[in-house]
Amino acid sequence: MATRQFKTTDPDLAVLYEKLAETSLQPLWELSGLLTAQPVVRGVPYRWAGKELRELGARAGELVPVDRGGDRRVLACCNPGLDGAPYAVSTLWAAVQYLRGFEVAPAHRHTPAALRFIVEGEGVWTLVDSDPLHMSTGDLVLTPSWTFHEHHNPTAAPMIWMDVLDLPVVAALDAVFFEEGPSEDADRATMRQSSSEAWFGGGPGLVPVGGPDLPAHRSPLLAYRWADTERALEAQLAVRADGHARMRYSDPVRGGDVMPTMRCEMERLRPGTMTASVRQTGGQVTCVLHGTGRITVGSGEQAQVFSVEPGDIVAIPSWAPRSVIADTELDLFTTSDAPVLEALGLFRVETVTGAKA
Amino acid sequence: MATRQFKTTDPDLAVLYEKLAETSLQPLWELSGLLTAQPVVRGVPYRWAGKELRELGARAGELVPVDRGGDRRVLACCNPGLDGAPYAVSTLWAAVQYLRGFEVAPAHRHTPAALRFIVEGEGVWTLVDSDPLHMSTGDLVLTPSWTFHEHHNPTAAPMIWMDVLDLPVVAALDAVFFEEGPSEDADRATMRQSSSEAWFGGGPGLVPVGGPDLPAHRSPLLAYRWADTERALEAQLAVRADGHARMRYSDPVRGGDVMPTMRCEMERLRPGTMTASVRQTGGQVTCVLHGTGRITVGSGEQAQVFSVEPGDIVAIPSWAPRSVIADTELDLFTTSDAPVLEALGLFRVETVTGAKA
Amino acid sequence: MATRQFKTTDPDLAVLYEKLAETSLQPLWELSGLLTAQPVVRGVPYRWAGKELRELGARAGELVPVDRGGDRRVLACCNPGLDGAPYAVSTLWAAVQYLRGFEVAPAHRHTPAALRFIVEGEGVWTLVDSDPLHMSTGDLVLTPSWTFHEHHNPTAAPMIWMDVLDLPVVAALDAVFFEEGPSEDADRATMRQSSSEAWFGGGPGLVPVGGPDLPAHRSPLLAYRWADTERALEAQLAVRADGHARMRYSDPVRGGDVMPTMRCEMERLRPGTMTASVRQTGGQVTCVLHGTGRITVGSGEQAQVFSVEPGDIVAIPSWAPRSVIADTELDLFTTSDAPVLEALGLFRVETVTGAKA
Amino acid sequence: MATRQFKTTDPDLAVLYEKLAETSLQPLWELSGLLTAQPVVRGVPYRWAGKELRELGARAGELVPVDRGGDRRVLACCNPGLDGAPYAVSTLWAAVQYLRGFEVAPAHRHTPAALRFIVEGEGVWTLVDSDPLHMSTGDLVLTPSWTFHEHHNPTAAPMIWMDVLDLPVVAALDAVFFEEGPSEDADRATMRQSSSEAWFGGGPGLVPVGGPDLPAHRSPLLAYRWADTERALEAQLAVRADGHARMRYSDPVRGGDVMPTMRCEMERLRPGTMTASVRQTGGQVTCVLHGTGRITVGSGEQAQVFSVEPGDIVAIPSWAPRSVIADTELDLFTTSDAPVLEALGLFRVETVTGAKA
Repeated sequence: MATRQFKTTDPDLAVLYEKLAETSLQPLWELSGLLTAQPVVRGVPYRWAGKELRELGARAGELVPVDRGGDRRVLACCNPGLDGAPYAVSTLWAAVQYLRGFEVAPAHRHTPAALRFIVEGEGVWTLVDSDPLHMSTGDLVLTPSWTFHEHHNPTAAPMIWMDVLDLPVVAALDAVFFEEGPSEDADRATMRQSSSEAWFGGGPGLVPVGGPDLPAHRSPLLAYRWADTERALEAQLAVRADGHARMRYSDPVRGGDVMPTMRCEMERLRPGTMTASVRQTGGQVTCVLHGTGRITVGSGEQAQVFSVEPGDIVAIPSWAPRSVIADTELDLFTTSDAPVLEALGLFRVETVTGAKA
Repeated sequence: MATRQFKTTDPDLAVLYEKLAETSLQPLWELSGLLTAQPVVRGVPYRWAGKELRELGARAGELVPVDRGGDRRVLACCNPGLDGAPYAVSTLWAAVQYLRGFEVAPAHRHTPAALRFIVEGEGVWTLVDSDPLHMSTGDLVLTPSWTFHEHHNPTAAPMIWMDVLDLPVVAALDAVFFEEGPSEDADRATMRQSSSEAWFGGGPGLVPVGGPDLPAHRSPLLAYRWADTERALEAQLAVRADGHARMRYSDPVRGGDVMPTMRCEMERLRPGTMTASVRQTGGQVTCVLHGTGRITVGSGEQAQVFSVEPGDIVAIPSWAPRSVIADTELDLFTTSDAPVLEALGLFRVETVTGAKA
Repeated sequence: MATRQFKTTDPDLAVLYEKLAETSLQPLWELSGLLTAQPVVRGVPYRWAGKELRELGARAGELVPVDRGGDRRVLACCNPGLDGAPYAVSTLWAAVQYLRGFEVAPAHRHTPAALRFIVEGEGVWTLVDSDPLHMSTGDLVLTPSWTFHEHHNPTAAPMIWMDVLDLPVVAALDAVFFEEGPSEDADRATMRQSSSEAWFGGGPGLVPVGGPDLPAHRSPLLAYRWADTERALEAQLAVRADGHARMRYSDPVRGGDVMPTMRCEMERLRPGTMTASVRQTGGQVTCVLHGTGRITVGSGEQAQVFSVEPGDIVAIPSWAPRSVIADTELDLFTTSDAPVLEALGLFRVETVTGAKA
Repeated sequence: MATRQFKTTDPDLAVLYEKLAETSLQPLWELSGLLTAQPVVRGVPYRWAGKELRELGARAGELVPVDRGGDRRVLACCNPGLDGAPYAVSTLWAAVQYLRGFEVAPAHRHTPAALRFIVEGEGVWTLVDSDPLHMSTGDLVLTPSWTFHEHHNPTAAPMIWMDVLDLPVVAALDAVFFEEGPSEDADRATMRQSSSEAWFGGGPGLVPVGGPDLPAHRSPLLAYRWADTERALEAQLAVRADGHARMRYSDPVRGGDVMPTMRCEMERLRPGTMTASVRQTGGQVTCVLHGTGRITVGSGEQAQVFSVEPGDIVAIPSWAPRSVIADTELDLFTTSDAPVLEALGLFRVETVTGAKA
């Protein structure tokens, strides 16, 4: 339990350093790297290929039962710059989850919040506090902090999707709690329509009177459907000249992000569109829904250019510039921890001039 | 300019009262009715028949040019209990506006905010700060405080709709400002899609990134379409057992009411449904969109039961209980000043037990 | 109950107008004065002299028992431009209240909120929901909406103070409720220190943990002491060059105005200081605490210059420019309805250039 | 840059694990400890003795110039449970800073926010964005995120105080920025009164009108004086029966915590008072200002009982119960990261029944 002891050739200092170590103190003047001019970012720009994620997910499906280790068959994206930590960027967990036909991932809940984004396929239901949410291509489904959730695949076909969690942030705050669900043998019967959507998914600016109480700290709407999202993107593209629509998913009743730790956005770029190079504090994870293009992350010599196609997941570390070129029409789903940085007064965003894609 | 002088048989008091009058003072002990146990409501329960509103609007269309008196051909609902003031309830102006084929009501703006609700017909465009808003049955169109607005009828058919304004509130605060529009000869060319809807009408919880700045104090979405509203009502009815869906129109980005002075709601009642009798502080105006039924306003001997049909406008004064019975499926659009009372800590609402419809 | 009928020489219109009157409708094109370029303000600039208020209050004390008419001995300032309505400006009640030695004004409560400002004297206790608030020169004491309040004078000397209420606003919203207090014979024993101040009056930015629940819609601190206010004014004057300090009384825990309908401010002007001429929407009432000077209200030919001394009350109607010259050091307490106008998006304020005092 | 590879005796799985490692993926079912029933807290209950902190600070003053390593002579409290990381708890940096007579710690700024709490002595000035803040026993002085700050000791006597920073949180978010100050040779002339206090330190609920713009995300008041704090504690003790007063330092204009990442509180316990045992998510650091007593941290076998005296610093890790017994009148200053956990919906607090001190 002793703390670190610093070395010195000065005998007086050596005595002091010994006493400091005994007293669990460290001399600031011997520490370095604490306050740096710019963030010394943990993690590197990286891309996981959708093709490999699908193949390895399927192989895991063949070899590993769903009930091993946490009741989820999940492959976690591990940023090579994070010393083996299973995180896509330093503040976000990203992974693919694979559920075989007729499998059930039973109910549990945890303080880390999660979202599910479906790149391909449909058929699985996620129950969130008993509310059944159908999952289909392009949908965003939320399983907020401390809500019970379970996944049911009533079909014969397997299904794969992306999970993003705020686990690194919650862990850094020593605030992880976990609980098994109320039933290991959850009811497989579901309705097509969730209660959440019936009450809160009415339309732009339409909110219920006399409905369920609003949950604290997060959106009461738990599923955002691709048909709505695409319509919104197209409507926006009709009135902007730059070929680049961008929507944020939000709490439909009170505004604000869908969850207090994660911001979700969808972009559509017309073919040939190129975005500015922008960097922001905090990490981002981008998943390609449709189309092909190139995503440049980082600047100068560290810049990485990733050619992307559907299912690819790209890690954008804090303060790394990101720009996108669409080769075909490109739909990108991005999760960031921007709400955390904004809440703490630490959010910075800037367009990087002179950047080259 | 002298103030009111009070009478007394006490000679000392008479001298005092004379001095008070000279000094523009009044003795509280001679005043009455200032602080009453319950609101002494100005205005009475009342119903304007849609059939008469349509007929009289059409007749005004034949006799009166649109450019007389305020550039609007408007018939104001005047609550018989308000001593001739042209208000539907003490805090809300309600009226029907009639525009003949090919007519234009030119641009102006004023601090009183307005909304337009369309019971029947379509074809007119309202430009709000140059943004063209198509008007059609069941739509709600906002012309918020101090926005330029003008109405264009490019069709041969006349059109009629309901206006509601917060004029009594703004006038009571001595805060009415008015300005003619930038052009008497506004451009009649319009687009089918408004910019407001392209940016902010995307869908439940979908908000733009990088779009126009949000206006202070009101929704950036200026038109709420009936198709969305009806879908929301039906979705809600699917999950509630009482046959009574109720939606509030809100700011899709920040939540809250569409405008700081007026709350807008739509109800759908399945045939045979009967609501509780509820009263709230502040006035309400209900307009029937579809269906027939009975609306009871007031309680005990003062209760009025109005048989209603489409186009009818019903005034519900402050603190008067209101209950509804649907004979056929009934859609009701209601505007109230509840945001004002809530902001000032004066909102009270209660279910009246033992009320009879 | 019929509405107003309009006259016309056109026989067709005459028939229409008759029908409109029968149907409780009014033609907008025959109405005027509804939407004016600038507020057609009700009320005029006015000044009630402190000397007269004290004398007439004392005379009322001799002639009228405190239990007549509302249990308060109050002289209401009646703006001569308000057609006999007992209001200082169109949205604020202002008055002087006079309590003789050993008198008690018993408990009641009402939705209109009130404040008490003491120009001179001390000794009376106001109980607000049983919390005893000592009243002394320069103090501001709140009796918020729907709080029980009663005034006790345990001393032999009479006391007079200014009341300001939002009664006109609450009445315009048909939201006046009133209730007698729990006891006609309230306990006269009081403590020097109020609970409100013990919990919430700690100091700048010091708020209790684990104290009473915060009341909705208003400050938990009910008394603002002159010693604090004067210290704050002097501290501010030490760092500003213009000789004009200005403080707002606020909710010490959540910020915002003390009550949702009334803003309270205190200004200190060094001798010889002259303020800019500023106008704002909504009415204001200024009371002179210390010093002499001149307050100009209105502009151009309507401008009134009031020479003021302690105890004077000055009415500043909506949108009337106000400027002040301090002949000696001048302390002014001002109440306005600005929170109402701000909440509704109707607040405008501007400096009037070229104004002359 | 390869990620971690997992071991297995199953040859098929071994092939899969190899591919996962090549693809920078990890199998969730091989990970453990990610989602635990309760927080697996990093850090242990610990106490640094004020006597030792003073002695070692003084000795560092003799041996180490202030301009070495970060321009600050600082001894960081290193929780023995944090593997050598220089943090008092996992989310807070705590340290003592020692400035010899006539020394200057020159200006810099960084995104991690800091606060200074003075246990003993006076005389040093801290300039925050050029505003001079005098430091004296019992004062709390803020140097918020990204404000330039420097410390000047114009006296002959050394001074020591406690620093607390949110550095671990900002570092975990990869959002550390740092910048040298505008001048290495800062002006030593100071005024006794800070501008911050002149404008914003007026008194409870007294806020300036027309003063400086409010900074985003933090209190405009930068120094909280002991005289005010003690008066608030005594006022509160006068109305509560449990002998335990507790104040939070807050933004005097808008409410809320002084900074978005750190909550500051002061408690006074009358001799003999014993608090309940309470635990909360997130770390806390308590510093003893006056008095002696015992602070129990943790529960059951892990419970540590620290006898404390002035200058002692105690680390309370996340979710560890804390209770206090005052032997003499005890004043405790506590910093926590509660605002972070609250903003993210992760704050939990509970009284632990059956705990024994």
